[in-house]
Amino acid sequence: MSRHVPESVRWRDDRLELLDQTQLPHHVAYEAQTSAESVEAAIRALKVRGAPAIGIAAAYGLVVATQPYRRATGERFEHALDAAAERLRHARPTAVNLRWAIDRVVATQRSGDGAARYCAIKAAAEAIHAEDRQMCRAIGEAGRPLIRDGCGVLTHCNAGALAVSELGTATAPMYLAHQAGVRFRVFAGETRPLLQGSRLTAWELQQSGIDVTLISDTMVAHLMAQGEIDLVIVGADRVVENGDVVNKIGTSMIAIVAKHFGVPFYVACPASTYDGATPDGQAVVIEERDADEVRTVRGQATAPSNVKVRNPAFDVTPFDFVTAFITNVGLLEPPFAQSLRALTTQPRRA
Amino acid sequence: MSRHVPESVRWRDDRLELLDQTQLPHHVAYEAQTSAESVEAAIRALKVRGAPAIGIAAAYGLVVATQPYRRATGERFEHALDAAAERLRHARPTAVNLRWAIDRVVATQRSGDGAARYCAIKAAAEAIHAEDRQMCRAIGEAGRPLIRDGCGVLTHCNAGALAVSELGTATAPMYLAHQAGVRFRVFAGETRPLLQGSRLTAWELQQSGIDVTLISDTMVAHLMAQGEIDLVIVGADRVVENGDVVNKIGTSMIAIVAKHFGVPFYVACPASTYDGATPDGQAVVIEERDADEVRTVRGQATAPSNVKVRNPAFDVTPFDFVTAFITNVGLLEPPFAQSLRALTTQPRRA
Repeated sequence: MSRHVPESVRWRDDRLELLDQTQLPHHVAYEAQTSAESVEAAIRALKVRGAPAIGIAAAYGLVVATQPYRRATGERFEHALDAAAERLRHARPTAVNLRWAIDRVVATQRSGDGAARYCAIKAAAEAIHAEDRQMCRAIGEAGRPLIRDGCGVLTHCNAGALAVSELGTATAPMYLAHQAGVRFRVFAGETRPLLQGSRLTAWELQQSGIDVTLISDTMVAHLMAQGEIDLVIVGADRVVENGDVVNKIGTSMIAIVAKHFGVPFYVACPASTYDGATPDGQAVVIEERDADEVRTVRGQATAPSNVKVRNPAFDVTPFDFVTAFITNVGLLEPPFAQSLRALTTQPRRA
Repeated sequence: MSRHVPESVRWRDDRLELLDQTQLPHHVAYEAQTSAESVEAAIRALKVRGAPAIGIAAAYGLVVATQPYRRATGERFEHALDAAAERLRHARPTAVNLRWAIDRVVATQRSGDGAARYCAIKAAAEAIHAEDRQMCRAIGEAGRPLIRDGCGVLTHCNAGALAVSELGTATAPMYLAHQAGVRFRVFAGETRPLLQGSRLTAWELQQSGIDVTLISDTMVAHLMAQGEIDLVIVGADRVVENGDVVNKIGTSMIAIVAKHFGVPFYVACPASTYDGATPDGQAVVIEERDADEVRTVRGQATAPSNVKVRNPAFDVTPFDFVTAFITNVGLLEPPFAQSLRALTTQPRRA
């Protein structure tokens, strides 16, 4: 890689730093975290975002919160750990990875003195982080051959290093292809209303030396008609049993247009995203977010202040618009009701 | 109509005022225009926009530019008129209506003294404006029966009163249906990068008392999947011989998604939009606009300041995605290569 892939969660010498993503791309500010309160506040304020990154941050949050109790009794340590876990568990209500990561750290070791318990939970947090990196790398290796010299790759929202760890999910094939010297370009859709594409994806790919071009969400069909996009790679918030994909609003529109133009549409997805208990996308309730996200751009009004708004945060891409899933166990092709089951044999991760 | 449809070009008592659309929806400011220079600047700065409105503004621009020469000789008047025409003709390179309106005014009368010539060009400008209003009304009447009680109508960009005159083109069926007491709702796509949907369409429909809901461009497929959109009505910058439609970037994406969901897709279009000399959309060169329009929102940076950008202003919707054209000579249905010829028998207008 010619330049540096930015990290959202930094853990070095027992110190935790979180990149404040709300200030990107204009300010790159890492904030030291020394308490469960500050990690909770960072998660609530969306300074750290992306389900896996939130899980990793919360796991380390437990570690920093209990650092002052390393020389305490096991009982006092345990009390501090439980209090921190309780606080962090509710930082974002819908984040499945958050609760999973906290439960895993807390369950690690419930015996010994403070020092022993601290070592155990630190090792658990580091393992969650390491497994996440490994998962990203496996996704990257599964997807890398899809990106060939001269390719144009479209992505939407940010399923990148900032949302996950190290290589991201949708971006992992791009980072590995770039490392391997493949020459390609990425189109990042800006992703209204919250502009994760322009603020985050364009920035992190640019930081990494990948040839990235920012477009408005309105430009996808035009670029496909011009033959400039050879494949689409997006992430997923949830993949259900039949292969329907719940992802950032706008994803299904891209999938429909891609199918029309015969452009392959790939969904990069770790095992933790798979929800085999939900039969199809129709069963998923789509969150409607605050109207002002659509009426404004980064706080600036762009529409009549009292105009009615719809603001669904996600949409459902039906499985038959997905060419294949790029996962940590390889490319999974149709029929997805069968192939996706490979993900249930994998360990969950943050 | 329960409330007031705003005007973009006001002509009263030989005085020209242009609504500064760049300040909408937060400030409603009409600026008096007294020279070709100021009208040219207003067109260049997109204070007045929409091909017909630009044509009307430029026609009146010639009138105000020559007002000081009403008592001059025919020769001096002619000189001033030609200079103003030359200046205004280049205010926006791709606006066909602009050049057509200017040519029509200039060709009106090339004899007599300043007073006679002034009267003639003023009458020509007023005729262009009146014909435009009549054209909008005819489009509205052709499209009104398509909007039924309980309908959800999607529109994109602004082909409204602000872009044209009085009723607009895409909006004309909406205004007439609203006048007739039909209860329906309009979804206005915000239309990045320049947000004509949120700034202009949402505002003008709201001003007029129509039930309007603003959405991001990313939400179209989701709303169609939910059955909330019953028809699409958009405008057109140019319609070529085979029926391909050149319109605001994002239009073709909506058309593809509409076809997928079986939602009728209508293009409202006056005779002046028809370009029978161009065989198909492939022959049309698409203007690429300034990168900062995509990197910023209303002047505020939303992306890395040096990130590469694509910014095509228009796209081509292939004719087979169009259900029918709503025109001033009625609904024109496929095969369009035949039906659209009805537009060539019509007088052109601004």
